[in-house]
Amino acid sequence: MFKFSTCNFRPNPIFLQPRASLDVQMEEIVTGHCTKVARNLHMERLRNHYLFPEISARELEHIKKYPNEKVIRLGIGNTTEPIPEVITLAMSDFTRALSTPEGYRGYGAEQGNMELRKAIVKTFYGDLPVKDTEVFVSDGSQCDISRLQAYIDSSVIIGQAGGFEDETGKYQNIVYMKCGPQNHFFPDLSNTLRTDVIFFCSPNNPTGHAASREQLEQLVEFAKENGSIIVYDSAYAAYITDESPQSIYEIPGAIEVAIEISSFSKIAGFTGVRLGWTVVPDELLFSNGFPVIHDFNRIVCSCFNGASNVAQAGGLACLSPEGAKAMLSVVDYYKENANILAESFASLGLNVYGGVNAPYLWVHCPGLRSWDVFNEILEKTHIITVPGSGFGPGGEEFIRVTTFGHRETILEASTRLKSLVLV
Amino acid sequence: MFKFSTCNFRPNPIFLQPRASLDVQMEEIVTGHCTKVARNLHMERLRNHYLFPEISARELEHIKKYPNEKVIRLGIGNTTEPIPEVITLAMSDFTRALSTPEGYRGYGAEQGNMELRKAIVKTFYGDLPVKDTEVFVSDGSQCDISRLQAYIDSSVIIGQAGGFEDETGKYQNIVYMKCGPQNHFFPDLSNTLRTDVIFFCSPNNPTGHAASREQLEQLVEFAKENGSIIVYDSAYAAYITDESPQSIYEIPGAIEVAIEISSFSKIAGFTGVRLGWTVVPDELLFSNGFPVIHDFNRIVCSCFNGASNVAQAGGLACLSPEGAKAMLSVVDYYKENANILAESFASLGLNVYGGVNAPYLWVHCPGLRSWDVFNEILEKTHIITVPGSGFGPGGEEFIRVTTFGHRETILEASTRLKSLVLV
Repeated sequence: MFKFSTCNFRPNPIFLQPRASLDVQMEEIVTGHCTKVARNLHMERLRNHYLFPEISARELEHIKKYPNEKVIRLGIGNTTEPIPEVITLAMSDFTRALSTPEGYRGYGAEQGNMELRKAIVKTFYGDLPVKDTEVFVSDGSQCDISRLQAYIDSSVIIGQAGGFEDETGKYQNIVYMKCGPQNHFFPDLSNTLRTDVIFFCSPNNPTGHAASREQLEQLVEFAKENGSIIVYDSAYAAYITDESPQSIYEIPGAIEVAIEISSFSKIAGFTGVRLGWTVVPDELLFSNGFPVIHDFNRIVCSCFNGASNVAQAGGLACLSPEGAKAMLSVVDYYKENANILAESFASLGLNVYGGVNAPYLWVHCPGLRSWDVFNEILEKTHIITVPGSGFGPGGEEFIRVTTFGHRETILEASTRLKSLVLV
Repeated sequence: MFKFSTCNFRPNPIFLQPRASLDVQMEEIVTGHCTKVARNLHMERLRNHYLFPEISARELEHIKKYPNEKVIRLGIGNTTEPIPEVITLAMSDFTRALSTPEGYRGYGAEQGNMELRKAIVKTFYGDLPVKDTEVFVSDGSQCDISRLQAYIDSSVIIGQAGGFEDETGKYQNIVYMKCGPQNHFFPDLSNTLRTDVIFFCSPNNPTGHAASREQLEQLVEFAKENGSIIVYDSAYAAYITDESPQSIYEIPGAIEVAIEISSFSKIAGFTGVRLGWTVVPDELLFSNGFPVIHDFNRIVCSCFNGASNVAQAGGLACLSPEGAKAMLSVVDYYKENANILAESFASLGLNVYGGVNAPYLWVHCPGLRSWDVFNEILEKTHIITVPGSGFGPGGEEFIRVTTFGHRETILEASTRLKSLVLV
């Protein structure tokens, strides 16, 4: 499911949609008033929300068992380092100006402040054929991904994903591509079924792999041949160290088949500030010739009133020369964390993927089950990771390790890991 | 359509959903690559997005014709007055602290900061039976309304609204309640068809009418009898001057049938900062007994990563004693604007509704068409209003006038209006 997953590009998440034929399993006995409004029973089919709650539950249990040990959390990928002052000063100045007649701003454009859209094009797309009018500023990539139905959950909620099969751990209507070391983290496209939408995340979460130029050329070609739309998630592009493309639009022809979604969260530490963007090229058309950008614009205007203007002021500061330099120094800090942790896992004789182009390590523990490895690491080192199987059936035998963290925490984790013996 | 509209409570906005049987009207000739992904042809059926673009087009035309006249915009309801310093200082302090190890914050809870949720309950719900865990902090009410499918457009996009009938100006599957002076802006519920969802906005946009306690009691009773869910938009509640309820939960039994959506936009001038909230009571259940709040929570967690933490810090400051006092002084400023403008329109012999409990006037021009009145006011006074018919078929003969504006602008508008003779 991870790395390369495809799903039908269909309606957005639902709140309610009756499907009376499905079974309902009540989670608890509740009291209240039964309306006559039917529940959307597709909600029953959601699975992966058990992952992080399950991890939290095991952490709590662990803390009870070892009340004096300090747990180190390398699970959820949450940024930890302060935002550089050049960026927060700009946000602070903007908010203070909101108290003046000259500086006050009410509604902005739903698509975002044009100055910011221009700066995004200049910084991230340079000479590539991306126009400022094709950039839609968002409150983070998750929201736009959901508007585009590109994640599994959105498809499940609307009923497009089909039933969940316990035996395979897969939804019926989603095409899963197993990507791992055996295929250089890229699927064999000659064996891949056609879908309307191809969701592709590079550098990838959880594997940390960045697709090569050649792989992306194949992908664009595949989408073109099949008449598919690629939804390309490049939220970790700033972490790329080698010559892998940082944008899908570096591939000729991609503007005709790809939407790109990105975010300030992991570059600028904006996970809580909330800011991202989506590029929908003019050249991308539905089968009837209608431009996708027109409908996306309409969805944005109907369902979203624009990102917070304070966050947008911060984003603009991020893209100033000083801001960009400061941002990248934080990225470098996390990359050094990645080096430290990768070296620690490698010292155990394990194959470590990712980390070079992404803030995640994808650690292979051949022959072991992900949850067992998770449990053993927690038991022996008091470190929280994420079992790879939580990301999909192809993640078995792996664990994901985030490299966001204060340096002293990462060094302490490294020390603990080096004394670990996995059985 | 305004004041009281009901629609089926169904799936959220769609990006794409093939419906090959509808006609496609191309808006322009475009060049690009046709994928094989079918467009969601329900998008074709959207109507009301022509309103504000049409107003802008007429404004541009007018400026060309009268390049030396100063146009006054009383059209779109956008806040104009600076945010009180006690609020922006808190936001500024929060952003500056993001540059420190102690003050840095990454991902917050998707449902919002618990301190803010508690403050919302304390400030807006006092002794009412609303719990902090039932409050979901949002990035403004529009987004949650769209997640709940309560606005016309969301229903159209998903295909629930049915076809648009040009003769009536209505969508087939939506029940429209004509509300006006003749029925005290409240529908005859004994003649109203049952729907899954009743969307009710009070104080109302565009009519400016706040429903009385008795009217809301009828509404709750009606919803209970029919097993419907009320989606209650109370974004303008802070403008209520008389004894009308400020929350639907002031009505006994409402927690069993109603969701309430509200916003800091028009209270605190947060139209650009983006902050709102939604209350989903534990007691509200689907027909199968499943709590609506569980699914709403899941939708929020899947499709939204929480409001900007800077905006939330601002919201918390709004609810401090000094913040609340400062906010209400801005509300009072706009209410004084409303008095000035209401008096001006009344001096023309027109019946003016709204303004007392809302920042909008709803001006009746019997026998005249809305667009004609709009044109005449623009031509003679260079003031932009909104033709009431743009809000739905029941708005004919009315214009909506926003009372957001700098005092000197409002006074100038008043002077110009008083010399107006409508023909």
